[in-house]
Amino acid sequence: MSAVPQGRPATAIHQHPAIPDGAPDVALAERLFAELRAHTGDAGGITRASYGQGEGFAHGMVRREALALGLDARADAASNLYVTLPGRSGERMLMIGSHLDSVPCGGNFDGAAGVLMGLAVLAGFRRAGIVPPYDIVVMAIRAEESAWFNASYIGSRAAFGLLEPAELDDVVRSDDGRSLGEHIRAVGGDPDALRRREAFLDPARIGLFIEPHIEQGPYLIAREAPAGIVTGIRGSFRHRRAACIGAYAHSGATPRALRQDAVSAVAALVVGLNALWRGLEEAGEDLTITVGQIATDPAEHAFSKVAGRVDFCLDVRSQSVDTLQSVRASLYRLAADVAAEFRVGFDFGPLTDSRPAVMDAAVVAGLAGTAEALGIAAPCMACGAGHDAAVFANVGIPTGMLFIRNANGSHNPDEAMDMADFAATAAILSHFCLAFEGTCP
Amino acid sequence: MSAVPQGRPATAIHQHPAIPDGAPDVALAERLFAELRAHTGDAGGITRASYGQGEGFAHGMVRREALALGLDARADAASNLYVTLPGRSGERMLMIGSHLDSVPCGGNFDGAAGVLMGLAVLAGFRRAGIVPPYDIVVMAIRAEESAWFNASYIGSRAAFGLLEPAELDDVVRSDDGRSLGEHIRAVGGDPDALRRREAFLDPARIGLFIEPHIEQGPYLIAREAPAGIVTGIRGSFRHRRAACIGAYAHSGATPRALRQDAVSAVAALVVGLNALWRGLEEAGEDLTITVGQIATDPAEHAFSKVAGRVDFCLDVRSQSVDTLQSVRASLYRLAADVAAEFRVGFDFGPLTDSRPAVMDAAVVAGLAGTAEALGIAAPCMACGAGHDAAVFANVGIPTGMLFIRNANGSHNPDEAMDMADFAATAAILSHFCLAFEGTCP
Repeated sequence: MSAVPQGRPATAIHQHPAIPDGAPDVALAERLFAELRAHTGDAGGITRASYGQGEGFAHGMVRREALALGLDARADAASNLYVTLPGRSGERMLMIGSHLDSVPCGGNFDGAAGVLMGLAVLAGFRRAGIVPPYDIVVMAIRAEESAWFNASYIGSRAAFGLLEPAELDDVVRSDDGRSLGEHIRAVGGDPDALRRREAFLDPARIGLFIEPHIEQGPYLIAREAPAGIVTGIRGSFRHRRAACIGAYAHSGATPRALRQDAVSAVAALVVGLNALWRGLEEAGEDLTITVGQIATDPAEHAFSKVAGRVDFCLDVRSQSVDTLQSVRASLYRLAADVAAEFRVGFDFGPLTDSRPAVMDAAVVAGLAGTAEALGIAAPCMACGAGHDAAVFANVGIPTGMLFIRNANGSHNPDEAMDMADFAATAAILSHFCLAFEGTCP
Repeated sequence: MSAVPQGRPATAIHQHPAIPDGAPDVALAERLFAELRAHTGDAGGITRASYGQGEGFAHGMVRREALALGLDARADAASNLYVTLPGRSGERMLMIGSHLDSVPCGGNFDGAAGVLMGLAVLAGFRRAGIVPPYDIVVMAIRAEESAWFNASYIGSRAAFGLLEPAELDDVVRSDDGRSLGEHIRAVGGDPDALRRREAFLDPARIGLFIEPHIEQGPYLIAREAPAGIVTGIRGSFRHRRAACIGAYAHSGATPRALRQDAVSAVAALVVGLNALWRGLEEAGEDLTITVGQIATDPAEHAFSKVAGRVDFCLDVRSQSVDTLQSVRASLYRLAADVAAEFRVGFDFGPLTDSRPAVMDAAVVAGLAGTAEALGIAAPCMACGAGHDAAVFANVGIPTGMLFIRNANGSHNPDEAMDMADFAATAAILSHFCLAFEGTCP
């Protein structure tokens, strides 16, 4: 594992933060962020619907810039866009990718930052005449935000021929009700090829995949670090429609011992889950436990009634399958104890889950070593949200993610990424790319 | 304090449960309950709007039966109805009363049971030719359920000239928007007299007031007792629109230490309040603490978001002003601790409160002694809901309440009072009435 990339023409870009030659073209990215904001945003935020107008604008813009840089640009059957800087060998390739769609009324950086960082890296190399060891391909991925189509990772799965044919007909966009297949055809894609499960990408040819992305939590701000290196994408289990069933009763007339109080029971469950989390965290396990929604029944509740029903949801995430299983078992035990104590019942409803995606250890170490050599603080951290990188990891491609510090979370107009942090993260990526020799540096 | 009433002509009714002469006419009450149900109920429940059709029907029915029994029946300016059985002395009187309105889609017994029990007692005396020591007056009170007019105890306050004149104009009925004054006039009352604060009742002439009422909680069922003797009507303090303000954050991307989780904070507050309640209960203090409503913001919440806001309400009741004050102080201390721990803020919003009404100790002891002598289990207990009895107590009249065992709470169509329990409670009341000698027996 080489800490500092030893790429031949790359010495010029070692002088972070003000790197004259071969450095990522951050000014280009900044200009394109502004263009995106002007064309896909309004007072309510940024809206780039999957296979819609905003996403289409972004794809066109990236293609235009790629061609202007003299780079190869082509689309696959799902209209994912691939921008390639040829390397000394075309045998394998290093991919950088993220998505260009956004949630409705979201922010300008979630997704787009990764694509524009890839483009900035290629532009820097191109302008400096740097030919990397292997092809570097920047992929602008379609339809990552499941706010539009109720399916995850549409573009990246399609690129590997992993879309279920039925999804093309059955999955419809939330705003217009038209099917995924119709939308793909409307932007010039080929749903028939996808229906035949034709793959554009061959995992064997991809040496590694890196997804740069803004952080969606406040960890890097708290750590005062411009960048983060993701060790794994958390898996999850979820009860989206859980309920605690007690019995409505008069608040003034029902003694404590005779209550079946759903509010008190759910409160005890939440406090118990937080204690469980604290204990596992202290034992070094990766975990988040969240009850994000809670509500008494609006048709039944009153300030002078003991609550007979509380609906709530539960979202548990971890990088470890074992931790997820252990928390799930503890949850049901805890709920049984609470139910007995408060004379209520719990109905957890359907369970959904997702597997953790582990980032490649060599990629993580390579990125960390590069950051350290550049003097850029980039702590290792778990990623709590789902990303296309999970698809690449799960088809066996060595995969990494770089987080860019960002305030105010994501999926809202207040996303706040500083271009200086973008530049620092791009520097890590840029140096790391040049060290890629067909396998991980 | 005489345990068994020593009324002169009353010996015949001592043979509970099957008392031939002078016993309350439970069959009459049962017939009138059926008539009420037939005329003021439908599949959705019982509806007797304050100053509306259902309440009017009930008042007409009680007047008709009173006149048929040869009793005096008259109304006051607020259209409260008074049915009088003259005693040997008219100098003072014993009053039995409750209301005849119901909540929308409520049950048949809340309120009406007290009036029909009074009527059954008078009918028993009348038919047996029993002349009680003093006048016994059964009062059918108007407009007790604040579901109709957003004001409490309208009828009983009006009887004492305690209605605020502005209420006649400003308080409107929830279903038709017409003012209280208009409604009183429409049923033949005299709002102008009420505006002049003319009182129909003189507290100095009322020796005592007893309100029989179904229990609205499950205490008597748990105690396997047909009747209960109320020691006091709990006062309260309430925060009907409290909120916990945290910060929305990504559920998978926000570490525990950086969260400002409103759900976890409110859960900790609820658990803390329940621990406080348990401790005070073990120390012998009378108390209920209820968080009956809780809800994350529907416009903002999502299963994958840490909750940034939770709205909730809090209802605290006790017979003791000191306990209410101490809980209030503890609440704010606890909330400050929780706010610090979870990095959130609490906004408790407006405070409303009501003073406890203490039942007369001699009345409580007299009722308890009577029940014991009759061999009827009738534990002493607090009353958690408001009742007209509080108005009588607060103008200085020695006041008591008798609870009748009842399943499924009240304010719903499933109220379930057994006529055998009604008869047992009526027997206590009937014997107690005959022992009244101008002051409490």
